[in-house]
Amino acid sequence: MIGFTLQASDGRARLGQLETAHGVVHTPAFMTVGTAGTVKGLLPEQVAATGAEIILGNTYHLMLRPGAERLARLGGLHKFMNWPSPILTDSGGFQAMSLAKLRTIDEDGITFQSHLDGSRWRLTPEDAMGIQASLGSDIQMVLDECTPFPASEAEAAASMRRSMRWAERSRAAFKAPPGHGVFGIVQGGVYAALRHESASALRAIGFDGYAIGGLAVGEGQAQMLGVLDALDSHLPTERPRYLMGVGTPDDIIEAVIRGIDMFDCVLPTRSGRTGRAYTHDGTLNLRNARHQDDAGPLDADCACPVCAHYARAYLHHLFRCEEMLGPILLTLHNLYFYQGLMARLRRAIGERRLSDEGTAFLARYRAGGKETEPPAVGG
Amino acid sequence: MIGFTLQASDGRARLGQLETAHGVVHTPAFMTVGTAGTVKGLLPEQVAATGAEIILGNTYHLMLRPGAERLARLGGLHKFMNWPSPILTDSGGFQAMSLAKLRTIDEDGITFQSHLDGSRWRLTPEDAMGIQASLGSDIQMVLDECTPFPASEAEAAASMRRSMRWAERSRAAFKAPPGHGVFGIVQGGVYAALRHESASALRAIGFDGYAIGGLAVGEGQAQMLGVLDALDSHLPTERPRYLMGVGTPDDIIEAVIRGIDMFDCVLPTRSGRTGRAYTHDGTLNLRNARHQDDAGPLDADCACPVCAHYARAYLHHLFRCEEMLGPILLTLHNLYFYQGLMARLRRAIGERRLSDEGTAFLARYRAGGKETEPPAVGG
Repeated sequence: MIGFTLQASDGRARLGQLETAHGVVHTPAFMTVGTAGTVKGLLPEQVAATGAEIILGNTYHLMLRPGAERLARLGGLHKFMNWPSPILTDSGGFQAMSLAKLRTIDEDGITFQSHLDGSRWRLTPEDAMGIQASLGSDIQMVLDECTPFPASEAEAAASMRRSMRWAERSRAAFKAPPGHGVFGIVQGGVYAALRHESASALRAIGFDGYAIGGLAVGEGQAQMLGVLDALDSHLPTERPRYLMGVGTPDDIIEAVIRGIDMFDCVLPTRSGRTGRAYTHDGTLNLRNARHQDDAGPLDADCACPVCAHYARAYLHHLFRCEEMLGPILLTLHNLYFYQGLMARLRRAIGERRLSDEGTAFLARYRAGGKETEPPAVGG
Repeated sequence: MIGFTLQASDGRARLGQLETAHGVVHTPAFMTVGTAGTVKGLLPEQVAATGAEIILGNTYHLMLRPGAERLARLGGLHKFMNWPSPILTDSGGFQAMSLAKLRTIDEDGITFQSHLDGSRWRLTPEDAMGIQASLGSDIQMVLDECTPFPASEAEAAASMRRSMRWAERSRAAFKAPPGHGVFGIVQGGVYAALRHESASALRAIGFDGYAIGGLAVGEGQAQMLGVLDALDSHLPTERPRYLMGVGTPDDIIEAVIRGIDMFDCVLPTRSGRTGRAYTHDGTLNLRNARHQDDAGPLDADCACPVCAHYARAYLHHLFRCEEMLGPILLTLHNLYFYQGLMARLRRAIGERRLSDEGTAFLARYRAGGKETEPPAVGG
């Protein structure tokens, strides 16, 4: 069981805090992704300095390397990676279905071959909970089936109902100590009736939090927000709501307005590694040669140490030379940007002016647009 | 002109400090290599935290990218890379001869093609000084010719004499403001008479410091130390002595004992990136599978933050997964180790017990040995 305290609300948006064995997380929260026991390129203290209070670990990657038993022997994931704050882990199912080879699903679980060495693995709902417990995860996720997109209503229904049976088995297998919790995952594709049925099934089982899965898979923002609207009155208000794998600053603002408390996404970290920076005026691609003489910062309105100390010209130089520091600095800036956005949204909810704040942010952000990829030659 | 104050001596070893436009450097000093405007993988504040007071920039790399004129327009290398402390730059000659394509030397300078794009470049002694001035280097190095190894006495003599003519032209072209200096470079291969002639030529010109070049190129430690012994009474005592491109902890200790004040080497950074860690008990290769369950630190006697917070098992995991944090943490540890060694040597000189300290360090270090590369499969 983990604690969740609601402190204020503004329309459907909520200001709250999660209380876990490893500390408090202020919500709405963005969870930085630390796939294989590291937020790529950063030391944990650098991640914490961005304002991150919780990170996400990927069970699929960690069960393959270094392995759940080894991690347990070494004292768990927090100690292993020197992250003393909360960790949420996914179930491993999504990556087993998207990364692994020769994966098959049956009623009991998922069978797959490691994308690394072809070794054969089996992941049942009970396995997923056992592995996450070995990692010492503060918030575990139930194993679910990832419904393909697009899926017919019949396909989405069959998939969702299997996920609900797995959710019940996952909940029964969950045996973590106080301060640790388990979240159910609402499925059902873009079909409101299936989403309602799924939410109802999960509430009947009872979870520490309710995640919304199977979105941001190509359905578009309007349909995604439609699912959030459809689910709003079907999820318990007193428990956190987590929109999995989302998203852009734009998506996050719209989802916070619709009552979502938690997010995770690889965008700020992965984009940072490829040269893309988030700014208040849209995104920049630092690999473009137009930055090579620019003495200005990434974002004149950003208070992060990257914007305080480095010119766009320097960041361009680092990417041009394929220096590790380029991905490091851009990941750092992007995480400051995301955490700064979350802090701004939390403040606005507390002051009951989220709608104005979100509108102002999005007007400027959308006007800035996205800088395209650099041409194949030059730069 | 830069200042150099000798504070104590112990045998031939010297404790001192360099005073430059960007601050003081305590000697004997190890200069961390920051080739292309970055110490690979680390933020400047992380480099400074290891104890580094001065870094080395490579003129060859910087003249190609981002270019000397651009760097000057952007405010110089210190500002560009956010390193407010002293920077020494090499002349570019060594890398032009070792990295570039189609390089030729004539009496006036070096012609070469960039290893990056085949573009044609020319580097004369005057160019080398002008470029280093554009970078804002605190300590510039004269352009010299890299004598091949092995070289006959006649070859080494001809090469050294050209380097002395270039040293004179470099000195004449040096026009940096107060707090900036230029070092001459003693050449002459393994031939004591040539080294004496070279030192004498440089003293006649007059430099802020005297580097010893052309060593650690395959001649072996005994011959290298022989050159230091032969040069000892031929270099002015009141100016710093810099042994270029050296070296292992072993080499550094032996050279400090012989009166060397400054070192630079890629070993701690480059080794760190490939998984090799320096410890008081020799070197480790973290890619070896034997570390995968080891909960202990790299070095139980190291006070660095890497040894405080991370197990060998974690570092092995990072290298196995090719995670950026592996090279980052090992580079960091290795730089702490090198800077810790320098601090220990400085303390010992001040207390006139360098010989005992060096002997104790080397006995343990040499007994530890070097861990071999991991096998091609597994690990």
